[in-house]
Parts: sequence; structure tokens; C-alpha cells
Amino acid sequence: MSADRYAYLGPEATFTEAALLQYLDSHGLRSRASTQPMRNAAAALDSVLDGDCLAAVVPIENSIEGGVPATIDALTDHGQLQIVAEVVVPVRFVLAVKPGTDPSTLTSFGSHPHGEAQVRTFMSANFPDAVYLPTSSTAAAARDLANDAADHVAAVCPALAAERYGLEVLADDIGERQDAETRFVVVTRPGAIPAPTGSDKTTVVASLRSDRAGALLDMLEQFATRGVNMSRIESRPTGDGLGLYQFSIDLLGHVHEARMADALQGVHRVTRSLRFLGSYPSASKTTAPLDPTTTDDSFTAAADWLDSTLNG
Amino acid sequence: MSADRYAYLGPEATFTEAALLQYLDSHGLRSRASTQPMRNAAAALDSVLDGDCLAAVVPIENSIEGGVPATIDALTDHGQLQIVAEVVVPVRFVLAVKPGTDPSTLTSFGSHPHGEAQVRTFMSANFPDAVYLPTSSTAAAARDLANDAADHVAAVCPALAAERYGLEVLADDIGERQDAETRFVVVTRPGAIPAPTGSDKTTVVASLRSDRAGALLDMLEQFATRGVNMSRIESRPTGDGLGLYQFSIDLLGHVHEARMADALQGVHRVTRSLRFLGSYPSASKTTAPLDPTTTDDSFTAAADWLDSTLNG
Amino acid sequence: MSADRYAYLGPEATFTEAALLQYLDSHGLRSRASTQPMRNAAAALDSVLDGDCLAAVVPIENSIEGGVPATIDALTDHGQLQIVAEVVVPVRFVLAVKPGTDPSTLTSFGSHPHGEAQVRTFMSANFPDAVYLPTSSTAAAARDLANDAADHVAAVCPALAAERYGLEVLADDIGERQDAETRFVVVTRPGAIPAPTGSDKTTVVASLRSDRAGALLDMLEQFATRGVNMSRIESRPTGDGLGLYQFSIDLLGHVHEARMADALQGVHRVTRSLRFLGSYPSASKTTAPLDPTTTDDSFTAAADWLDSTLNG
Amino acid sequence: MSADRYAYLGPEATFTEAALLQYLDSHGLRSRASTQPMRNAAAALDSVLDGDCLAAVVPIENSIEGGVPATIDALTDHGQLQIVAEVVVPVRFVLAVKPGTDPSTLTSFGSHPHGEAQVRTFMSANFPDAVYLPTSSTAAAARDLANDAADHVAAVCPALAAERYGLEVLADDIGERQDAETRFVVVTRPGAIPAPTGSDKTTVVASLRSDRAGALLDMLEQFATRGVNMSRIESRPTGDGLGLYQFSIDLLGHVHEARMADALQGVHRVTRSLRFLGSYPSASKTTAPLDPTTTDDSFTAAADWLDSTLNG
Repeated sequence: MSADRYAYLGPEATFTEAALLQYLDSHGLRSRASTQPMRNAAAALDSVLDGDCLAAVVPIENSIEGGVPATIDALTDHGQLQIVAEVVVPVRFVLAVKPGTDPSTLTSFGSHPHGEAQVRTFMSANFPDAVYLPTSSTAAAARDLANDAADHVAAVCPALAAERYGLEVLADDIGERQDAETRFVVVTRPGAIPAPTGSDKTTVVASLRSDRAGALLDMLEQFATRGVNMSRIESRPTGDGLGLYQFSIDLLGHVHEARMADALQGVHRVTRSLRFLGSYPSASKTTAPLDPTTTDDSFTAAADWLDSTLNG
Repeated sequence: MSADRYAYLGPEATFTEAALLQYLDSHGLRSRASTQPMRNAAAALDSVLDGDCLAAVVPIENSIEGGVPATIDALTDHGQLQIVAEVVVPVRFVLAVKPGTDPSTLTSFGSHPHGEAQVRTFMSANFPDAVYLPTSSTAAAARDLANDAADHVAAVCPALAAERYGLEVLADDIGERQDAETRFVVVTRPGAIPAPTGSDKTTVVASLRSDRAGALLDMLEQFATRGVNMSRIESRPTGDGLGLYQFSIDLLGHVHEARMADALQGVHRVTRSLRFLGSYPSASKTTAPLDPTTTDDSFTAAADWLDSTLNG
Repeated sequence: MSADRYAYLGPEATFTEAALLQYLDSHGLRSRASTQPMRNAAAALDSVLDGDCLAAVVPIENSIEGGVPATIDALTDHGQLQIVAEVVVPVRFVLAVKPGTDPSTLTSFGSHPHGEAQVRTFMSANFPDAVYLPTSSTAAAARDLANDAADHVAAVCPALAAERYGLEVLADDIGERQDAETRFVVVTRPGAIPAPTGSDKTTVVASLRSDRAGALLDMLEQFATRGVNMSRIESRPTGDGLGLYQFSIDLLGHVHEARMADALQGVHRVTRSLRFLGSYPSASKTTAPLDPTTTDDSFTAAADWLDSTLNG
Repeated sequence: MSADRYAYLGPEATFTEAALLQYLDSHGLRSRASTQPMRNAAAALDSVLDGDCLAAVVPIENSIEGGVPATIDALTDHGQLQIVAEVVVPVRFVLAVKPGTDPSTLTSFGSHPHGEAQVRTFMSANFPDAVYLPTSSTAAAARDLANDAADHVAAVCPALAAERYGLEVLADDIGERQDAETRFVVVTRPGAIPAPTGSDKTTVVASLRSDRAGALLDMLEQFATRGVNMSRIESRPTGDGLGLYQFSIDLLGHVHEARMADALQGVHRVTRSLRFLGSYPSASKTTAPLDPTTTDDSFTAAADWLDSTLNG
């Protein structure tokens, strides 16, 4: 039996691959999965659209490795795909060397500039004389070191890369922002929306009407009057002219919940276009208690009231 | 064949009877109708609830003859009744005497204090020496004068009362506020809601939740996000404690229009209770054009969008 | 030395006099005060405006003895006066008889209809055969009984009236709503605004612009964006035409607090007229903690920021 | 006398230089100015901060040549600088060759990929066999062609580049989006804010509080309640964690206008931080009429009202 294929934004051994492996493990899918690094987000999504891969994992927010606007744009352009899960991965760097390397010989280290920026404090405190040599990705720093294809004698990279390429970890978690993390989404072809879990997110992309002041406020009030909160909002130019934006938005809640369904219909009315990218379990399982005016029960009671008002 | 019976807030020959006659005329119902003055709004509504009368006409807003809070309270208490029409009547006073009276003998005049307040300028300019004698209603001033049961020799009363009691009109439209008018509603037992005309009103009574600051703002935002405007809002204490109010509200639009139905469901969620008193043609036929984001079509398009999002 | 004179809405020995006495006691003013019942709210306010009395006490909200709209209208018309305090009095009825009366002879009782409505359950349970005889006020029922000027043999009245007229209390607190209470305000000529206590109210009367849908929402948003909450809002027709209202509003906070001063300026802009009736200590000393975005400090910081932005 | 130095985002002969020249011409400054291309937005701003240049011109919105997020970030980081003008330049490409080139020999053309994307329709219709060769900028395609340093025989570039490098224009305005344009800002060291013209913009950067749902709505309502409209809003991650954003916002109006000053103070209260980047004349001279509730006069009247309320 052939393996199920999963695409991810490459290269290999980055935080994105770590996110995919975390997803496969938590869903018991790893044993029958094969994973495929892709050169960019659009290519990863294409491989799903083509049927070549079952799903793709791409970064969506605040990644050290890059990627947010490209992912949002690619998802919007590949409108038929849907997000079915999110994965949050801590951004944690290690200092790795070839096994047996004497730390006192650590005269240089390689990493992607984003990685180097994160570990500057650690390196200058501990290896003040080590020269920094840039690489095309943090994983490449590890790979090239392992393959004797590098000028550097140490790599600042994800733990996954050190492990994958057989390096020895001299120091773990050496980044300055110990709470840094990246959020990834798992994208599939359209199909059943994952069932609500009580702690879900919904992602949409909305283009505002250009003919009215206050269009953004109008949209946000549609959410507010149904008690729907946002966890992320980002503007993206539509490409149609100065001052025309679309907004990529993550909402707390599931489209199968009445408040979300009602709010999205309201947003549909007041926007130029609205695209639904998916409802899926939130990586964070904590849920804020719902206000009693926005529960499914309160929506059902309101619909029943209207029905009995209209029909006696 | 017995006549159809209609109740109205008495006494006879007031602006309320004028409103009822205007309603009957405009609906071609006058020839087969009998009309019945009632001692107060509650009694008028009772006669409809009992099946004794087909409909009742009661003042609802800003009447010279009194009546607004009593009507609203009575309508709220008689919750099963519905408003099926509104009638607006200009508040126009005449100076009437027994036929043949010489104006120079006009030494006194009778009216309800509300009527007298309206004609003070006219009377002091034209009959500075005429003494004012209060009566229990403006119509009673005319009736008692006609019946030789009054001390006054002239009546300040509605044109209808002068005509009814065979008085001669010395001067017409003598009130100070020539644009004064009173709004009446026609109330029936529950039944079919009058069909939308494109220029309708909807009347509701809502009690706010007491447990939250901003409850009134919350309610108004439910209307605003669906483009539903108010033409009247009045507070009434609920009787349950200091600071607890219900609001009697007239809205522009019909409950069979999507924006109204959607807004009322939203209001139902955020209020303690909501009572629907009727959707009915507006007396004023002018309509503001609807914003394209709040037409029935935009609501249908939003529902279709959600349906296709959920079901592929 | 002549006494300081205080007016109150009469008659004597009602809850309004009780409110005045409670105010005088709590401010250590009773020993040098003389109190004066007035026939209506306007007369009480007139006596202050004339300089005849130092202050007047009038009911403002939900009183059993009546009075709210009349008070609000009188305060609005007497625009130069200001509210300097509020007093909340529990509405508590006693059953009183002439001393030595045998309860078994209690065949009738007198009270104002509002009072009778409150004690119906108690009376029918305990004195099912006692006939109810209406009086013009609850205090009058006691006074006439004491003066042998009544047909009734018992009075349902405030404790103050029983005490004042030397009656014997057979049963205390016999009303059905044991939490009923009435709110009174103490009104003086214009002068220094009472200093903020941290738990204050501000009363205003605002007339909405008639030329715009959403005028009420506009006004409430001015309060909401400064974190100012309302404890009471009541509509009153302006008398200028159908659909034109002014709103009498109690706000939590003091005009010397930045958020209130800023909100009132915003309301001034968006309304047709705005009248300030006073800032005064709240009868309830409980205060909700202020949101950090609406403290005086946050307003000062914002003004400082703007100043440094404009002036370097 | 040495010339006044102006920096711009290079290279030479791009739309950014065109914007700078347009600015200098319209202000009568060109004759005494020297212009200096800089390698990126940060370097251009540095040259102003250092005192090396009087002002810098950088693209801020929707440029074909790139630049928006980088400019916003650089402006935010160089917080002491201020925007004093905006310049809007149409994005218009020409097809240019060395003088005397026979169009039938046009077998290849060079341009930046963004430029090539804009002219694909024109080129495939008119020169279907011409091969596209990428260059580092549209201006470089012209420069290298003029210097015999290119493999291509034609350049797709701004008219300014063709003119600067002595090329012959074969076809003008060959882009697909004939309404494409880029907005640039002129940035100086802090100093006097340009006087209001009646048609101005104000640019700010605000970071939202992370501790509350609805923080964006709260901010927008501060603008809405003062009638301040936005012409651009863009989110930028703060770098402090997932879901933490700052917003770069262009507002219609000037900080010397009361509604803007009041709104910005409100925004200061409800945000984590607020940075003012400048008030300056709008490139578009059309102005929407102000609502009477948001004019300077209405703010002055409100302040006067409050003053007389507090001080008698």
C-alpha cells in the first residue's frame, strides 16, 4: 500500500516540517505518511489541489522562517482549499556541531539571518569570537555542516535539524524570545468541515466596499453584535487600487455555531466579497465562557420567538 | 345584517373619533360600521379582546387629548392584540357657538385645559375679555354648549365636535402649533399581519437586561447593524425596581422584511423580554431608499453564500 | 435665629418628607431646619428659585406616591436649579389604628390606591372582611383617622405617618414588594458643584437632533467610548412634534472627572441641546472599578501626549 | 551656495525619483536641490535623521517598485521623523530603445519582473517573439541598454528613465492597469507641522492592547464618534508574539483640527502605544463636507458649554 503524501513548505528539517510531524503524531497518522518539502507556499497548496498530496502544512503567522503574507495570498488565490487544523510550534534554536567537536574550536557558526538575530545575546556572551556566516535557511546550516559543505563549524538551527543531520547539541533553547512561536495551518481539498470541539477557530478573507467611510467598522460591528471575537486581523492590498484592502481574519468559534453563521451572513452583506477558509480546532484548548446572549440556545430561542410571532 | 363594531377612546367627537372615521373612510368600511366610545384605552382594548368589537382606535403619541403612556401600557398588558394600522390626525381647533350667536356677546368659552393652552394667543388677541371655563374634554365643551348645559357661550373644540353638535364655527384652525398632530393606532385580535407595502412600521416593547451596563446600546446596535431605523422610542418603568425599564419602540420596516426579522432576533437575544405589537402600513408614504447592504436580496445572497459554504 | 427652610413635595408624613428628614439627619442639619410641604414639584422648585427655601426634595424615580415625569419636567423647565444629593427611601407600609383599637373590629381601612395595591395580599390573608376606602394620599389616611375625620378604622401608611399622627402600628412592612424603594433628589439654586466622592451620579437632559436616523445611538456611543455608564434613561416628548424626544439621563460619575467632562462635550456636539442638572454623591456607595482606559490619569496622559506631539 | 540635498529610495530614474521631482517642482524647490538615490527606505530616512539630507521621499502604498511594509516599519522605527507631504504618481510604462533601432529587430526586452507583469498583454500582442530578460529594476533596464551593458534590445521602464538615459520611446503607457499609481511620502526631521489646508491627512501607528477582545473595534469607535474617517489601514505584527499587531493608519483631517486632536487622545487612551507620523496636505484636493457635529465650531461650542456649566 502506498503512503499518504503530505506537503510542507520546505526546506527539510525546519519548524514547518516539525509542525507537520507534530500534526501527524497527534492524529496517529505518522506511520503511513510520507512527507514532501515544497519550494514555496503556492507549490505546497498546488500539490493538494492537484491531488498529489492529501494535505499541506504552511506557516500563517509570525514565523521566524518567513511566510505569512505569501501563505495568506496563496490561500486566498487557491480559494477552493480549506483549513482543517492549526499547529503551533515553539521557535527554539539549538547550537549544534559535528559530534566530538571541541567547543573551544568554535570559531564560526552558520544560520539564517532570522535565526542569528535571535541568538545574538547568547553567542556574544558565550562565543564572543565566533564569526557569523549566513545560510539560506536554519536547516541548511545544519545540513551543510553535516555534509562537510560548509565553512562554519557550528549551526544555529531547530532541534529537528540537528537530530536529522546527526549533529551534537552543545546548547538548547538559546533564543532571546523564549516564548516565540509560529502558527501553521493544515490545508486540504474541500470536504467535510471538522466538527466543532467547543474551542475552534474560523478563518475568512473579506474585501471591504470601497464606497463608504467606516466600512471596516461596519464589518467589525457585525462580529461584535453576535459576540464573535477575533484572534488575528491582517490587511492585504487587493491589487485593485490605492486604499483597497482585503482583511484576513481568524475568529474564535465555528461556522456550525449560530453566532458565527449569523455574523458571517452579516459580514457578507456589508463587504464586497467574503471567502471562508475553514473552521477547525484551536491549538489552544482554553475557551472563554460564552455570553448568554450569544449561545446557540439564545439563537434558537430567538428564531422560535420570531416563528411564533409570525405564525401565531 | 348587524353592523361591524369599532371601539375608540371616548368621549364622542374628539380627535380619536375623527381618527377612527378617517380609518373607516380610507378603507371603505364606514357604511357598515358602528362606533363605540370607551372610557379609557384599557376598556377599548378589552372590547376587542372580548370579541365585542372588531377593532379599537387609541392614541399612541403626543396627543392633546392625553393618552400615550396609558395606551402603551394597555397594549403591553393586552399582549395578544396587534396593531394593524396607524392614523395621523392634525390637531386643529375651531371656535364654535350656538348658531346665530353674536360674537360680541362671547364673554366666556369652554375647553379642556390642553385645548385652552393651544389657543391662548388667538383668544387674547380676538376676545381679550372672554373668561375661560374648564371642561372635561374639548368635545364636552361643544356638547354641553349645544345642550344648554354649560355656563360658557363658546367652545374651543375639534371641527368634528362642532359639526356633531350643530354648532356654528366662528374661526377655524386657531391653535398656536399649526403642525400639531396626534398619532393613533388601530388594534385588532391576533391574525394575519398586514402585507408589506414598502412603507411600514413595526412596534415592539423590549425590557432590558438589568445585569449589564450598556444594555440599551447593545439593543440599538442590533438594529443599526441591520440598517433598521427607529421613528419613536419611549421608556416605561417595568415596575420591578429602580432603574429597570422597558422601551416602547416604533421601527421603520416590516417584520416580513429580512432586515427587520433578523434585527428582532438579535434584540430577542440581548433583551430580557421582547413583545411584538404589529407591523402595519406607515401613515406617511414617503420611504427612504434602502442601503444595498440591508435589502431582502442582500440577506438572501448572504444566506445562499452560507449554505453553499457549508454544503459545498 | 430663623431656621433654614426646606421644601418638599407634600402632603406631610409621606415618603418624600421621610426622604427630606433622612437627608437632614445624615448631614447634621435637622436641628436648625424647618420643613415645608408643597402642593406639587413645580411649587417646591419655585420656592427654591425664589429664595424662599434653601433646597427642595422631590421624587425622581418610580415612586409609589407618584411624581417622576412631573419632577423631570419641572427640573428641566427650572433649568437654573441643580441637584446636589439623592436620597433613596424604602417604600414600607404599616397597618395603623387609633391606640387601643381591637383588631377584631377592623372592618375597614383607608389608603391611597397605590398603597392599597401593595398590601392586597396581606390584607386579604389577615383581614379578609375589611372594606377598602380610598384616600387622597397614604398620609391622609392616617391623619384623617387620627382626627376622627375618616370612615375607616385603620390606615395603610408610611411608618412616619403613623408616628406623626399618634397611631398604633398593628403590622409593619406589609407591602408585597419588600424591595420597593423611591429615589428622591435634593435641589438647590446654582452654586458650587458638590466635590467628587468617587461614587457619584450626574443628571442631564438631552434633546436629540431630529434630522438623523440613529441620533440616540450616536449619543450613547459618546458615553460608551469614554466608559461612562447610565443608571437611568427616560424619554420625554419635547412638545415640538411627533417623534421628537428629550432624554433624562443619570450617569455614573462626576463632571469633574475627565471621562464625564469629555463625554458630555461629545454629547453636546451630537445633540440639539444638552442641560446639566448636577453631579452629586450616589446614595449607593458601591463603585465599579474604572477601566484603565477611562481613568483621569489616562485622560491626562493622552492630553500630555498630544501636547508633546504638537509642541515637540 | 551649496544645494539642498534630498534623498529618495533608489535606484535613479524610477517612479520614486519621479515623485521627488514632482514634489520639488510643485514647491518651486527644484533649481536649488540636489537629489540622492539611497539603497533602501531605512537608509533614506537615516540620511534625514543624520542631517545629511533635508528630506527623503519613500513609497508608502501599493508601489509597483515595492516598498510599503519596509517604509512603514522604517518610519515607525525612526519615530522622530515626520511626514510633511504626500505625492501620488501614476505608474506608467514606456517601451524604449536606443535611438534609431528598427522595431523589427526587437527580439528581447528587459525590465523588473513587476514591470514585465504589467505589460504582458501589450508585448504579446505587438512583439510576440520578443524574449523577456529580467533586470534588478525597471530603471536599470534602461540604463544598461543605454550603456551597452545589456543583452536586451528594448527596455520597459518609466518615461523618466527613457529620458534620463537618452532612449527613444516606441510606445507610451503600455501597462495593463492604466489607473495604477503609487503613493509616496516626503519625510523631514521634526519641526513645524504643515498648516491645515482643509484637505489634509494624518498618519499614525497604533499598537492595540492585547488584553481585550474588541480592541480594534474600540479604537475605530474613537475615530467614528468624532467623525474622523480612515483612508488606509494596514496591520503589521509587533514582533512581540502571535496575535499582537500594530496598525498603520491614514486619517482624513489635520491634528490642528479639533475632531482629530480629540480622536487621537481617545485612541491614546485605548491603545498600548500611539505614534504620530504627521499631518500634511492631501494629494487629492477633494474634500467631503464635514458633518456639523464634528466641525471645529461644534467642538468649541461644546467646550464653552462645559466651561459655563462648571463655572457658572
